[in-house]
Amino acid sequence: MKTLNLDLGKNSYPIYIGQDLLSQPDYLTKHISGKQVMIVSNTTVAPLYLDKVQTLLGNYTVACVILPDGEAYKTLDTVNQIFTALLEARFDRSCTLIALGGGVVGDMTGYAAASYQRGVNFIQIPTTLLSQVDSSVGGKTGVNHALGKNMIGAFHQPKCVLIDVDTLDTLDERQYSAGLAEVIKYGLLGNADFFVYLQKNIDNLMRRDKALIVKIVYQSCVDKADIVAQDELESGKRALLNFGHTFGHAIENTLGYGVYLHGEAVAVGMLMATALSAVEGFISNKDINQVKDLLQKANLPTSINSKIDYQNFIDAMRVDKKTINGEVRLVLMKKIGQAFISNAYQPQNLEQIIKDFL
Amino acid sequence: MKTLNLDLGKNSYPIYIGQDLLSQPDYLTKHISGKQVMIVSNTTVAPLYLDKVQTLLGNYTVACVILPDGEAYKTLDTVNQIFTALLEARFDRSCTLIALGGGVVGDMTGYAAASYQRGVNFIQIPTTLLSQVDSSVGGKTGVNHALGKNMIGAFHQPKCVLIDVDTLDTLDERQYSAGLAEVIKYGLLGNADFFVYLQKNIDNLMRRDKALIVKIVYQSCVDKADIVAQDELESGKRALLNFGHTFGHAIENTLGYGVYLHGEAVAVGMLMATALSAVEGFISNKDINQVKDLLQKANLPTSINSKIDYQNFIDAMRVDKKTINGEVRLVLMKKIGQAFISNAYQPQNLEQIIKDFL
Repeated sequence: MKTLNLDLGKNSYPIYIGQDLLSQPDYLTKHISGKQVMIVSNTTVAPLYLDKVQTLLGNYTVACVILPDGEAYKTLDTVNQIFTALLEARFDRSCTLIALGGGVVGDMTGYAAASYQRGVNFIQIPTTLLSQVDSSVGGKTGVNHALGKNMIGAFHQPKCVLIDVDTLDTLDERQYSAGLAEVIKYGLLGNADFFVYLQKNIDNLMRRDKALIVKIVYQSCVDKADIVAQDELESGKRALLNFGHTFGHAIENTLGYGVYLHGEAVAVGMLMATALSAVEGFISNKDINQVKDLLQKANLPTSINSKIDYQNFIDAMRVDKKTINGEVRLVLMKKIGQAFISNAYQPQNLEQIIKDFL
Repeated sequence: MKTLNLDLGKNSYPIYIGQDLLSQPDYLTKHISGKQVMIVSNTTVAPLYLDKVQTLLGNYTVACVILPDGEAYKTLDTVNQIFTALLEARFDRSCTLIALGGGVVGDMTGYAAASYQRGVNFIQIPTTLLSQVDSSVGGKTGVNHALGKNMIGAFHQPKCVLIDVDTLDTLDERQYSAGLAEVIKYGLLGNADFFVYLQKNIDNLMRRDKALIVKIVYQSCVDKADIVAQDELESGKRALLNFGHTFGHAIENTLGYGVYLHGEAVAVGMLMATALSAVEGFISNKDINQVKDLLQKANLPTSINSKIDYQNFIDAMRVDKKTINGEVRLVLMKKIGQAFISNAYQPQNLEQIIKDFL
């Protein structure tokens, strides 16, 4: 078991990463201060792991709310179901929410915790690779709006993140690959050695070597924690974590949430950002091929197999939290492992890349 | 014009209090950092003051959203209308929201600002006495849930509060009196001299002497700012500001929001808390009469003129943010001008007081 401490002053918390952690109550219970615990899960994950988590909480008043599964339900209405469950259970400000599931459950549970009675404690137990390496760490919470992804939310840090990689045993191949997209992202945006490591080990990763999974989850969390600790509220460097995401969000938004998994859309988006970085003269076509090759070996899409209108796509890109006074800022690469935020790209290059992919 | 600085470290902000402030752009514009401004108002206030505020913002991209008026609309659905307006206007993280209206508009605008893109700037321009002396100051934002008042929200401090007491010229008598309830609250909970001052000046206040109004608004904000500065996130002393509110919220909740104005429900609630403080042996019946007399001179209700079921009332009291592990904590008075938080009262005394008033 590895422990990583995310250093955010009074908002600091540990991230526990290992196998069989859901059989050991202490990791969880030492971060619960009150007596009331609400477990939030979904219809897919609850049948698999809810009993196991409840067993760890014998001494608490435990209630559960089971949400529908999928990005399409990541809405204010679904979060309101959590508020209703909390109020029906008469839970007060001393309660703790536990998110048991993937990124959608984590994002909504975190936002519910940020908003219920103006803020209660919460804990993340991410059960997908994508949420283990990305969304459960860093305190970004929220929901989608019909007009834009993740447009409503809060920064609200958990009390701990409990990553039991054994929960990946029940994750299907498509979801697993989608998680690898975010792992590859850390290599591209800031860690060239990690990118090379992933290239060397991709076959064993696809065979789900558990020791290797612990290593890459840990390294992803280290890289993310490092950036978040420098910029908790995303006023600068944290935006690098959005590498590939402005394109990816536009894919999800124009095709409709759920057609591509988030990680799949990010994979295509990262390749678009890579291609734009090449056209802008920062990296070579060989670099593009390396990125494309690794994504393909991870069983991730590298093109869009549906028709999207160019204008709709660029409009969707403008609804991005990095946009300032109407100007779309993008995360590009100077080289593999060195990303930067730019508004100085040529608009016609952006247009060309989008049209190449649509 | 008086300026009061609310000292909250990096969240500090000024409160401007005076006449004719809505004719002077600088108070507003020096607290707007981006170029995009969304004014949020309601169907009652917008026809009176929206033009005036828009005139101050000639150099900005200004959009407006006009909400329905009333506590019944203080919901997540109405806040979602603000998100929709912001996204339709393509406003980004650099935008500023301006709340132009009473407490309901201020609470919803503040919560929308806390949540839009995980947090944007906002400014309060309160136009009712109640919001000028209470809800616009201190950063509490949020909405009601069908199962409880103010159960969903965030602590999110404005960049400034602009209180133009001339806006009270258009406030009807009932709303004006409701505001006085919160003014009287500051005397009761922590400022005996102010209570005496209000007793002496209540007739001139009811005649709406403008210089006197500036004084009592200023003093109310001073008293509130003092408590908020000591306890921004309500982990202790700030709960004193809820004097009368646990009872008041239960009145609003059981009768339905809008039957009593918030300040009216608080007036009755303060008298109930006063009566309980007397039965508990802290204050005298003479004190009760002084409180009742001042409330009556301010044209505020001192009894409930509708039938409420006792069990419903006590259930509604339990849904209160001061409740911890199921135990209802109340704000009582040791003497007039000295409130404290207690869970040590006799339950049968509480039951008796509720039954006396129902």
